[in-house]
Amino acid sequence: MNIVLYNPEIPYNTGNIGRTCVLTNTTLHLIKPLGFSLDEKQIKKAGLDYWKLVDLKIWESFEEFLEANPNATIYYATTKTNQKYSDVKFKENDFIMFGPESRGIPEEILNKNPERCITIPMIPMGRSLNLSNSAAIILYEGLRQLDFPYTQAK
Amino acid sequence: MNIVLYNPEIPYNTGNIGRTCVLTNTTLHLIKPLGFSLDEKQIKKAGLDYWKLVDLKIWESFEEFLEANPNATIYYATTKTNQKYSDVKFKENDFIMFGPESRGIPEEILNKNPERCITIPMIPMGRSLNLSNSAAIILYEGLRQLDFPYTQAK
Repeated sequence: MNIVLYNPEIPYNTGNIGRTCVLTNTTLHLIKPLGFSLDEKQIKKAGLDYWKLVDLKIWESFEEFLEANPNATIYYATTKTNQKYSDVKFKENDFIMFGPESRGIPEEILNKNPERCITIPMIPMGRSLNLSNSAAIILYEGLRQLDFPYTQAK
Repeated sequence: MNIVLYNPEIPYNTGNIGRTCVLTNTTLHLIKPLGFSLDEKQIKKAGLDYWKLVDLKIWESFEEFLEANPNATIYYATTKTNQKYSDVKFKENDFIMFGPESRGIPEEILNKNPERCITIPMIPMGRSLNLSNSAAIILYEGLRQLDFPYTQAK
């Protein structure tokens, strides 16, 4: 599968998500601008010895990412929808996109793709989960639906 | 539900797990010794403004925890089993226990409860996911099975 971080701000989260990606054969896409440098110490610390193993793709803009992946099924993680992440049927090459920690995915992108917006249910007054936890929860729901393909003999 | 952290070492992880607990009406149990002080800055930073809202129970030892919760169904998260976390049927008051980041749950506890050991599938050479991600993944699988009880009108 594919995780897409749109303008991530906090290197610790990106490092942690990279670790999860390595451990699940998931490609990590980062869409610039980033809130940190890619060789910053915190990424390496959070990603432990995993960061150098990440299948990483860096994109200059969301438009560049879309042009390079014209047939991608992209799910948009947001608190601004009622469709649960567990109610969609993931396919093996799907993309799951997350916005910056402080703002989430821009509404103009969400509004163009309402049927692809998904959310993680929280208590009603909840604001949001940590970004790396959100990515782990949705990614693993997709992997569960696909019966953890990386554990199966080819 | 209930998350139990046995001798957690890294305050950032415990803070993050506390945030996830608040957002899902989950009780957080910490079993001493802890690798940090409970008013350390990092916990508050990672837990944001959530930490003060955590339904927190502190136990002096695993024995004290067990005596106080004699009828608990406890699942033990470990890399040392083949039973997937998604193959068990969670109930609303179940407990999910995680060991310290560096060592995991002691084998003597795992060996006494083999049918309650659960694991998150990773690639074969993978070591382990980040603790707060692991807790989020298993907790949300339980919540998914229970249809996210905190979102339902009582």
